[in-house]
Amino acid sequence: MSESYTVAELAAAVGGTVCGEAALRLSGIAEIDHAGPDQLTWAGDAKFTKLIPSSQAGAILVPHDADPTPMPAILCAHVESALVIAMKMLAPSQAMPAIGVHSTAVVDARARLGTDVAVGPLVVIGPGTVIGDHTHLHAGVHLGADCRVGANCVLWDQVVIRERCVLGDRVTLDAHVVIGSDGYGYTFADGAHRRLTHGGNVEIHDDVDMGAGCAIDRAKFRSTVIGRGTKLDNLVHVGHNVQIGAHCLIMAGAVIGGSTTLEDGVVIGGNAGLSDHVTLGRQVQVVGMSTVWSDLAAGMVASGIPARDHREHLRELATLRRGSALLARVKKLTQRVEQLEASADHLDSR
Amino acid sequence: MSESYTVAELAAAVGGTVCGEAALRLSGIAEIDHAGPDQLTWAGDAKFTKLIPSSQAGAILVPHDADPTPMPAILCAHVESALVIAMKMLAPSQAMPAIGVHSTAVVDARARLGTDVAVGPLVVIGPGTVIGDHTHLHAGVHLGADCRVGANCVLWDQVVIRERCVLGDRVTLDAHVVIGSDGYGYTFADGAHRRLTHGGNVEIHDDVDMGAGCAIDRAKFRSTVIGRGTKLDNLVHVGHNVQIGAHCLIMAGAVIGGSTTLEDGVVIGGNAGLSDHVTLGRQVQVVGMSTVWSDLAAGMVASGIPARDHREHLRELATLRRGSALLARVKKLTQRVEQLEASADHLDSR
Amino acid sequence: MSESYTVAELAAAVGGTVCGEAALRLSGIAEIDHAGPDQLTWAGDAKFTKLIPSSQAGAILVPHDADPTPMPAILCAHVESALVIAMKMLAPSQAMPAIGVHSTAVVDARARLGTDVAVGPLVVIGPGTVIGDHTHLHAGVHLGADCRVGANCVLWDQVVIRERCVLGDRVTLDAHVVIGSDGYGYTFADGAHRRLTHGGNVEIHDDVDMGAGCAIDRAKFRSTVIGRGTKLDNLVHVGHNVQIGAHCLIMAGAVIGGSTTLEDGVVIGGNAGLSDHVTLGRQVQVVGMSTVWSDLAAGMVASGIPARDHREHLRELATLRRGSALLARVKKLTQRVEQLEASADHLDSR
Repeated sequence: MSESYTVAELAAAVGGTVCGEAALRLSGIAEIDHAGPDQLTWAGDAKFTKLIPSSQAGAILVPHDADPTPMPAILCAHVESALVIAMKMLAPSQAMPAIGVHSTAVVDARARLGTDVAVGPLVVIGPGTVIGDHTHLHAGVHLGADCRVGANCVLWDQVVIRERCVLGDRVTLDAHVVIGSDGYGYTFADGAHRRLTHGGNVEIHDDVDMGAGCAIDRAKFRSTVIGRGTKLDNLVHVGHNVQIGAHCLIMAGAVIGGSTTLEDGVVIGGNAGLSDHVTLGRQVQVVGMSTVWSDLAAGMVASGIPARDHREHLRELATLRRGSALLARVKKLTQRVEQLEASADHLDSR
Repeated sequence: MSESYTVAELAAAVGGTVCGEAALRLSGIAEIDHAGPDQLTWAGDAKFTKLIPSSQAGAILVPHDADPTPMPAILCAHVESALVIAMKMLAPSQAMPAIGVHSTAVVDARARLGTDVAVGPLVVIGPGTVIGDHTHLHAGVHLGADCRVGANCVLWDQVVIRERCVLGDRVTLDAHVVIGSDGYGYTFADGAHRRLTHGGNVEIHDDVDMGAGCAIDRAKFRSTVIGRGTKLDNLVHVGHNVQIGAHCLIMAGAVIGGSTTLEDGVVIGGNAGLSDHVTLGRQVQVVGMSTVWSDLAAGMVASGIPARDHREHLRELATLRRGSALLARVKKLTQRVEQLEASADHLDSR
Repeated sequence: MSESYTVAELAAAVGGTVCGEAALRLSGIAEIDHAGPDQLTWAGDAKFTKLIPSSQAGAILVPHDADPTPMPAILCAHVESALVIAMKMLAPSQAMPAIGVHSTAVVDARARLGTDVAVGPLVVIGPGTVIGDHTHLHAGVHLGADCRVGANCVLWDQVVIRERCVLGDRVTLDAHVVIGSDGYGYTFADGAHRRLTHGGNVEIHDDVDMGAGCAIDRAKFRSTVIGRGTKLDNLVHVGHNVQIGAHCLIMAGAVIGGSTTLEDGVVIGGNAGLSDHVTLGRQVQVVGMSTVWSDLAAGMVASGIPARDHREHLRELATLRRGSALLARVKKLTQRVEQLEASADHLDSR
């Protein structure tokens, strides 16, 4: 079940002003064409604004300079920011594990837990591991030895954090994430690939989120680093020694090769691949399914295999499409040249 | 161990007619060039039929109008359909967890289990969750709060179903599948990506199968939907709010962006990527490693990055291969035109 | 914590000769520009050798014919091979589960464990399963019925091995690997995809490593095989009936379609895809994000979608980049031909 709130309470929470019935109570949130009379909705742009007259929503988040609406409105400085708060308040609750340590959890006596930590069923915590205040570990989370997990983190079911890895505050890892798996490093000797033991770790800064099934390899030495506020979608691979900056977005299925660097604000599309040892400057955007073989300068939008300037690549694709027309044209031109040659011979021989 | 059956019993099960020794007992099934005297095999097409004389198989499934065979035969209306039944009967048994609740399972008192449900070791079931008759939960399956799982489902080891998700009947999820992970939805405000709390769920219809490690995100509002009879291979990502129709096939490593729609009977090749908010009409086929950037009309076979008509794309590839020949040709032609021009100048100057 | 060793002990272990203070004690290893006075480093090539004078390392691995170094040196026949041993000795210890069966593990009475096996918390072992000497099963590993696991294996947290699968000796599987998931095999009959029950298994030979989240499907009949010494990175998919040879390298996110064969020493780049039923000869290399649609001859380096000879593909890409220049050139040439034609008409009409 969701909590319920009055329009006035919601307005206070999002820092907006009520216009209309402030006492109306709402217990959910939905898009403008789906919201019912006990639900909040929002209209931040023209596409949604034009649906206001026909909406059944109980109340609406609108910009502070919006036209009057048929239902109670909350006037906001930024509708999108207000929406972040309202969605959190009005979404159905997530049923977190209870504060305390579940009787089936296996917690080493040398682990240290902060205040109000929730340790769900069948969680395993190794020796020397430290967990910050208000952190929630869902059922089946495994933390190896000597890990540090910050405050207010949420680790969903069966997340595995291997030995000596470090998480900041407010880190959210969805189910089945693996942090600190061995890096993929071998040397070929005496007829076989010999594993290089990876003695480093993974360091995840504050406010990082990861989707289900991501796998982040530990460094050979020192740390694989994921910077503050960076968000990974599902099933992303991050190789050993990778350095990812702050506020990056990395979409599902992307593969980031070892020792590669992403500066702040980089965006990587779905299923894209980055080679080992390349550097992507600040704000680089890589289109999905592209592959980066070499460094990309700050601000570049890149696509293709290998990735190059996106506009240039689109022009190449357009040229390719005209390829068979070009072929036909050259064939035709050849015939005309042949005719001209024949005629030139004829003139010459006159 | 596999069960053993007589040719007569197998014929009855597949709805076929025995031709030869009906009492022969078989305890396995194998391809025609590998089957031994206690094994069944099949020959539904010319490739296999020509191997019948040299086969050691104990008995064989053949079409009802097939030529006589040296071993006992079961004549079938459709060999492929008969094979589905015979493989199920003759495969080694899968060692399902025992009916009842294992002593190490953690089942909330407010969960409701149907008749003959098998709950394996270390399974976790949250409050309000309902499980249908004859469903098998292998070791370490986690079901969050308020989930509904239908009848005759099989959930393999360490499947995670998060809160409020719904599964139909006869759903099979292989190990490590995650259903209901948070959707990847953020809004950038005050210098950081802010998470939009995803209050929706995932709805999986009857007869869906998923391979190991698939991750299916919950909707922002309402449901991410996977339609009846759709089959996902391993490590497939399905984004928030995606609507997948009935009887689709989605190969390993495919990534389906948020709010995208697949109508019935769509086929997606391995490692292919679909952008957000695109619609693929009925029976669309997308070749592996292609990327769909825009809607595809029903029945279309598409390939390339971005995906376009497959035949057209193949023609483009062929043109590309002739690219250097074309370059050489244009160079040659230019020389001939230069000669003509020189000769025309000469004529003009006469 | 790492163990500590004297230079003499390390030299003995790697089969090298000490040059300098043999009694110096080292407790870690790092790259040449990061190593401190209690750490070992190495310099096997010119890039690292030139950093020796400025290095703070306590001791160094160098080739046996190297110039004298300011710090104690261990002269080695092969620096890379020595490094494999030294990294293993000097990396921080990995905190393996204790020898014996943890009290929370669920081990079937019909399972058989070798000498000095370590079974961590919440491990599940099915009936008939046999585990070799000195094998370590981390927390939450699940082994189905009738599996065989060799000696000296390490299975990290929550690895799932389904029924009847077989692992050789010294196999290392990182967290969340799934071995023996059902193959993706269906036949369309009576309006729906019908699952073909997969009665085969997976066979993993000695010295295989797999990264986190790999999923290896069982064969329809007989075995999916991964050959001796082959190393898989994270999140790799291997389809049913695949036959992978010895000493292959398969990078993160690669997808290998059913019944495909990789001969010995094949290298597959990240996110690459191999279709069903293709054969890659010995030592084939497939560049990342390429897709193999047909057989590749031994030794070939292939790239592109579909994959072709890598050099040829690079030439095609270069041609594509000159595509718009070519277009302009043909346009220009056409104008010149038109002029020639006009002039020829003029001459003719004289």
